[in-house]
Amino acid sequence: MHIPVTPPVAASTVTDLLDGRWAHVRRDARARMAELPSPQTHDLTTERHREQVLGELRELAKGGYPRVGFPTRYGGEGDTGGSLTSFEMLGFGDLSLMVKAGVQWGLFGGAVEALGTERHHERYLREIMELDLPGCFAMTETGHGSDVQHLRTTATYDPATAEFVVHTPHEAARKDYIGNAARDGRIAAVFAQLVTGGTGHGVHALLVPLRDEHGEVLPGVRIEDCGRKAGLNGVDNGRIWFDQVRVPREALLNRYGDVAEDGTYSSPVEGDSRRFFTMLGTLIRGRISVAGAAGSATKSALNIAVRYGLTRRQFERPGSPDEVVVLDYLAHQRKLLPALATSYALHFAQEELVTTLHELSGSEYDDRRQRELESRAAGLKAATTWHATRTIQACREACGGAGYLAENRLPQLKADTDVFTTFEGDNTVLFQLVAKGLLTGYQQHLHELGTAGMARFIADQVVGTVIERTAARTLISRLVNAVTPQDEETDLLDRGWHLRLFEDREKHVLDTLARRLRRAGDADADPFEVFNAAQDHVLRAARVHVERVVLEAFVAGIDRCADQGAVDLLNRVCDLHVLSAVEADLDWFLGHGRFGAARAKAVTGAVNDLCRHLRPHALTLVDAFAIPTALVGAPIALEAERERQAAQRRHDRVALPRKEDSGKAVTS
Amino acid sequence: MHIPVTPPVAASTVTDLLDGRWAHVRRDARARMAELPSPQTHDLTTERHREQVLGELRELAKGGYPRVGFPTRYGGEGDTGGSLTSFEMLGFGDLSLMVKAGVQWGLFGGAVEALGTERHHERYLREIMELDLPGCFAMTETGHGSDVQHLRTTATYDPATAEFVVHTPHEAARKDYIGNAARDGRIAAVFAQLVTGGTGHGVHALLVPLRDEHGEVLPGVRIEDCGRKAGLNGVDNGRIWFDQVRVPREALLNRYGDVAEDGTYSSPVEGDSRRFFTMLGTLIRGRISVAGAAGSATKSALNIAVRYGLTRRQFERPGSPDEVVVLDYLAHQRKLLPALATSYALHFAQEELVTTLHELSGSEYDDRRQRELESRAAGLKAATTWHATRTIQACREACGGAGYLAENRLPQLKADTDVFTTFEGDNTVLFQLVAKGLLTGYQQHLHELGTAGMARFIADQVVGTVIERTAARTLISRLVNAVTPQDEETDLLDRGWHLRLFEDREKHVLDTLARRLRRAGDADADPFEVFNAAQDHVLRAARVHVERVVLEAFVAGIDRCADQGAVDLLNRVCDLHVLSAVEADLDWFLGHGRFGAARAKAVTGAVNDLCRHLRPHALTLVDAFAIPTALVGAPIALEAERERQAAQRRHDRVALPRKEDSGKAVTS
Repeated sequence: MHIPVTPPVAASTVTDLLDGRWAHVRRDARARMAELPSPQTHDLTTERHREQVLGELRELAKGGYPRVGFPTRYGGEGDTGGSLTSFEMLGFGDLSLMVKAGVQWGLFGGAVEALGTERHHERYLREIMELDLPGCFAMTETGHGSDVQHLRTTATYDPATAEFVVHTPHEAARKDYIGNAARDGRIAAVFAQLVTGGTGHGVHALLVPLRDEHGEVLPGVRIEDCGRKAGLNGVDNGRIWFDQVRVPREALLNRYGDVAEDGTYSSPVEGDSRRFFTMLGTLIRGRISVAGAAGSATKSALNIAVRYGLTRRQFERPGSPDEVVVLDYLAHQRKLLPALATSYALHFAQEELVTTLHELSGSEYDDRRQRELESRAAGLKAATTWHATRTIQACREACGGAGYLAENRLPQLKADTDVFTTFEGDNTVLFQLVAKGLLTGYQQHLHELGTAGMARFIADQVVGTVIERTAARTLISRLVNAVTPQDEETDLLDRGWHLRLFEDREKHVLDTLARRLRRAGDADADPFEVFNAAQDHVLRAARVHVERVVLEAFVAGIDRCADQGAVDLLNRVCDLHVLSAVEADLDWFLGHGRFGAARAKAVTGAVNDLCRHLRPHALTLVDAFAIPTALVGAPIALEAERERQAAQRRHDRVALPRKEDSGKAVTS
Repeated sequence: MHIPVTPPVAASTVTDLLDGRWAHVRRDARARMAELPSPQTHDLTTERHREQVLGELRELAKGGYPRVGFPTRYGGEGDTGGSLTSFEMLGFGDLSLMVKAGVQWGLFGGAVEALGTERHHERYLREIMELDLPGCFAMTETGHGSDVQHLRTTATYDPATAEFVVHTPHEAARKDYIGNAARDGRIAAVFAQLVTGGTGHGVHALLVPLRDEHGEVLPGVRIEDCGRKAGLNGVDNGRIWFDQVRVPREALLNRYGDVAEDGTYSSPVEGDSRRFFTMLGTLIRGRISVAGAAGSATKSALNIAVRYGLTRRQFERPGSPDEVVVLDYLAHQRKLLPALATSYALHFAQEELVTTLHELSGSEYDDRRQRELESRAAGLKAATTWHATRTIQACREACGGAGYLAENRLPQLKADTDVFTTFEGDNTVLFQLVAKGLLTGYQQHLHELGTAGMARFIADQVVGTVIERTAARTLISRLVNAVTPQDEETDLLDRGWHLRLFEDREKHVLDTLARRLRRAGDADADPFEVFNAAQDHVLRAARVHVERVVLEAFVAGIDRCADQGAVDLLNRVCDLHVLSAVEADLDWFLGHGRFGAARAKAVTGAVNDLCRHLRPHALTLVDAFAIPTALVGAPIALEAERERQAAQRRHDRVALPRKEDSGKAVTS
């Protein structure tokens, strides 16, 4: 393996590529967010923090920030991709603000727009956009979070008064963790089992007022504050109980299901279950926004840790009076640089996902593409938020005691993003959703092949027929076809080899999973037990699928770049991303004969070499995120220059004449 | 592989074994701690929290809690092991209290006792024990944490007045993160470069007053509050600067180095470096206490998450109206049960370490055994605190939104313990210390063998001559010798096979590391580069060493148990611990031909089987930690009974007649 020399690249060149299609939205967000209060909120009480975040939200509303995502006929710009990008950018600031904005404009506003019809749009969208009507998205209950289909709140139609009666039948059916509920929400999109004429029609959403214009909670509604949380304390999460609360028939968000005055139910979508998933599918943006914000928070943490790693020195270099910059240690590089590389990969995957949704939202509804997009969003949300949790943790540890101080922001970034792995869909459940989608596609595929084709298909394991390429199909195919399969001699940096390796792994994992789950159909099998016993396999299938999709997006992203210097640098970043992912899954590649012990060892060696190779570019790679100084916050990151000088002084070390040589330090 | 049926075991039987030699200390701690304020402190301001913790500390002092560790001639009980166990138990409460107690009685008190001589003991020990003299342990500086040997604070002897002048020469030399400094500390054990007659003698500790009896900071001393931290906000960490502060000659803690009135330096230990490490070695108890407290916090988190996992239900079981208890899902078991098993393993390793220190502290100073103990403490501290960080994070995620609420304690447990991985020695640095110790022993061994022996030694890779067994040597040897090496047919639950596998891995990793590092001696080699390029290998050597030591301690612990039922259960726990550790390192075992693909797959299958097998015992295993109800705190753990009833109600689900079958939920 030969790593070509990578000359320095201007960070701004890389920024241009990262900023991509919605560069104007990103630049606008940077400018506006720099004007907001500091993202350091650790000294605020809960109440003061909530107040500050509400103030910031008003500031954003006044400046027209949320307009980008709303329909043009209500004063918006109708730019779906721009709207998602603007949420991603909020992830660089106080994450409470991002979440509160997400609740108001993304979830609540999104529900009214996507599930409601013109009567709701006319009446509410402008007020929602301008924050004159703060609202909640009341879906989760104490007893049912991931399993939304089995929520217990009921909305029973009473034809006598043409009203719905919204009711919390028992304690576990209370709405829980609802953002905007404890303090500011005046109305809620409540998800409940719709009942009319004694028949249930599954979960639907209705608009139910919570407070009057003075903020007083309305009769029949009870609200409790969820209290202090690990983070996001600028968001007022609460619990809501409804005691036979009556709302007019028109309160039903009736795009996918309506009730006539006489109580007759109708829907353009056949089947409770299909209707339910169609309704949920329209709310996909929440997951994409969370993934985006998680990505931004991870970049903030890496920016802080890399800058500190470049100024912090510890232990003398043997035979030299200099102390070693900690980012020169391999162990330190390994803590930060592969994670940095993967953050780049996820950035491109996120951009691709946003683009796809943007284009889909402007075109005719296509069931298959919509399902694919949902699966993509679920998978990327899980991958990105787990990456955030791991990486911000690693950044905290890489900054030692300084990383534990609130002023250096890492504790807040960690605590705020921590819930991302379990809200807007628990990651484990989401990965199962992804795997289920893959298996469905797989079964359709097998079905089309027929029995003869099936036999041929199973015999011929190498050609990846099932794997549909997601991005830059021609480019990826060309790269893949250029390598000889399973050639141990292929250069470790060969992109075609990487792509083929990931494709092949996905196909194999999915193949074996499908075969395993087929047993669930046996007469004597308990389908739950069969599925449950394979749950680790199911999660692996989702993971390796997402890894393949992310890699393809990264490759396609680099291909869009016109600057050769940036291309060269990003190719090395991509190499580190791929090979560290391969290294993390070495047991699979070894255990499935994809390569032998020597190549496995070479992979680890290559990760080390790439860390060393990218070390001089580390600052460029975090500078390219273009995080405004006002949003960096952490003194250990901002005081780089001061630190550099202090380091110089430490160099001119206390000159103590010594009787004898002092022993060498532990790590030297 | 056949897993024998494990009948139910009374939790108290397991508690008796876990409580071990210092059971009386544990029982006493449980009773006292149940009387303290709730460990839930998330609603307290920093100032109020500090006040509360100081109050609790006074409560403990008044009740004689710290007596156990101090010398009998000053009113203590001189029970080293008991003292360490009492710190471990404090880890079940508010961790701020544990850390504040650790600073006062462990670090500060420990420094005075271990580094001082009779004059200091007479004057201070009783006051320290009774908290009449709150003190600090002022070692870390902003510029030097891990590299203590190169601290910059100076203590220069002035023979004219027989005083030391303590001074902070520049900004990066300020003392930083010092517990007890921001608010309560009246005096500090300050670590500084000792200079007399123009000659430096390395780092020594002196007692320097910080505040007068009214709490006013003394002239020449400047103190700044470190402010809010991720957690542990009941501890008042601060920064300290000294501006030519004068203290009498007697302020020097002079056990290992003294200055006569005329300025002549003397020491019973030859060599600055050796003296320095001897001094540090006496402070080993801090690391052991942190490991103990991390273990307790992990148990608290597991107790909460397992209880919640047993009451929380989500998604219907196909063909049944029942919703599935989440701990019945394999993915959920995998999040919690292997971590629970490893917590058991670490418990026994900790107990063994405490016992060793206890016995060593009562006997003649033995350089080799002391070094071994230091290495053991460093390794176990790193392993236990990383395990805590990972496990508490997993527990938080396993509890979803409920786990994010402060009232359920997981956020606090996570935030409080987070710094454990980087304080009292950064884990990465500690693992390097461990590896260095192993290599030193190794080199001595090679040296003794001579050239002929060396050749034989390298040819004969299988017999583990280097690996010194740590616990229950006879038992372990018997188990190891009973298996045929590398027999793929050996039962996966064969303990001898496990032990041999871990021994063999350690030996191989160490062998290859030693060979790699030998290159540093080549004429053209840059020793730093050679060492740095192998840093991942170095860290692996430490990790696999610690894993072997921990396993042996677990095996020895089970061997001490007289109750056959408990033995059977703990053997399955041990199986899960070992095999999940093997699974986590599968790439190594595969890549080094220790076993093939089929056996690798079988390991994963066995982990799944053991999870399922231990699922019915999960409650027993957390009950056995015997955490007092008052210390559990989390409503989701305490309201098990209430939840069980609610679950029953959810069973009797809202009976909605349905027009059609609803589709099956995602994970069913």
